[in-house]
Amino acid sequence: MTENKDIEDLIKIISKLPGLGPKSAKRIVLKLINNREELTKPLVNTLAQVYKNVVRCKICGNLKSTNANCTCSTKKYEQICVVENIADMWVIQSSGIYKGHYHILGGTLPNLENKKKEDGLLISSLIDRVKKNSVKEVILATSATVEGQTTAHYIQDSLKDTKVKISKLAQGLPIGGEIEFLDDGTLFSAFKNRAPVAND
Amino acid sequence: MTENKDIEDLIKIISKLPGLGPKSAKRIVLKLINNREELTKPLVNTLAQVYKNVVRCKICGNLKSTNANCTCSTKKYEQICVVENIADMWVIQSSGIYKGHYHILGGTLPNLENKKKEDGLLISSLIDRVKKNSVKEVILATSATVEGQTTAHYIQDSLKDTKVKISKLAQGLPIGGEIEFLDDGTLFSAFKNRAPVAND
Repeated sequence: MTENKDIEDLIKIISKLPGLGPKSAKRIVLKLINNREELTKPLVNTLAQVYKNVVRCKICGNLKSTNANCTCSTKKYEQICVVENIADMWVIQSSGIYKGHYHILGGTLPNLENKKKEDGLLISSLIDRVKKNSVKEVILATSATVEGQTTAHYIQDSLKDTKVKISKLAQGLPIGGEIEFLDDGTLFSAFKNRAPVAND
Repeated sequence: MTENKDIEDLIKIISKLPGLGPKSAKRIVLKLINNREELTKPLVNTLAQVYKNVVRCKICGNLKSTNANCTCSTKKYEQICVVENIADMWVIQSSGIYKGHYHILGGTLPNLENKKKEDGLLISSLIDRVKKNSVKEVILATSATVEGQTTAHYIQDSLKDTKVKISKLAQGLPIGGEIEFLDDGTLFSAFKNRAPVAND
């Protein structure tokens, strides 16, 4: 259709990226063709750089340089924040609330039935980290979804023997959340976790 | 924010692509990190291939291999279809209506005032092509916008001396167009270009 094999291949690959389809991939390829030096060249170089240099650590799931040891094994730490994926970590990092070490599970457990199947999730390596580093607190920052909470529960169980302090993110009203529009689940959590108010 | 220079650079470049912003760029980068061999590797290779091998011909504006002569100077042809950009050519090509040679202007003239400024548009090379190849017909397939029609008019003027036959795409009701929802301009064209009907 475009009479050029390279271009066709590129459109095919780009349309596999999340949020993109054949039409938007074509628009992107046209932009790349028309901006060879300003856009295509730096994209090729940076992408090659990332492909060559960045891998995921098999212990903590975080990104690390191919030829260096991950900070999870070179540094000392007393807190670990457990998240489902890198995107979750980035959001917490950019909020500036927590600046310590992370552990990226790589997803959630499918459901309670398959509880024993940790396939791919970095759960046993989390237990190892806790034991080796005399970690004092594990913060479970999985999503407030069924899968996220199931996974948190499973991790809590798995860490029982280590006697480490385990905490979970609070559940309740989101800031700006109007009661009128909240779902039952959120309301339930908010009532259940209600806090006493000082009587001035 | 992501604590990795390469990743940050990649997000920045990808968010410059059309239709993408920082959030969608991040999602794409995460997908690339999680699919190194199936996605990132072929993308790097194909992109490098396109950067190395594909350039735009300075005569006809079409894509050509870096080390080969463009078909616009190696082949004989009697028809040239003039379009604004490569995307327009791709649409016409995929419709299968016209299978001849193209001439890609690279945009439109800004407006009537700047009529003499052809900056960047491949108009003089079109005149050369018409003269050198004893072309019999130039089909002006610019958009039915003010800019597209101004450009078509300007090209028509420029080709006057060559005595080549010049044609323009018909204007009128689009197929499936309901009269009720058509704009005045389209209705005007449709009335002006009305065709006699055979009386059986």
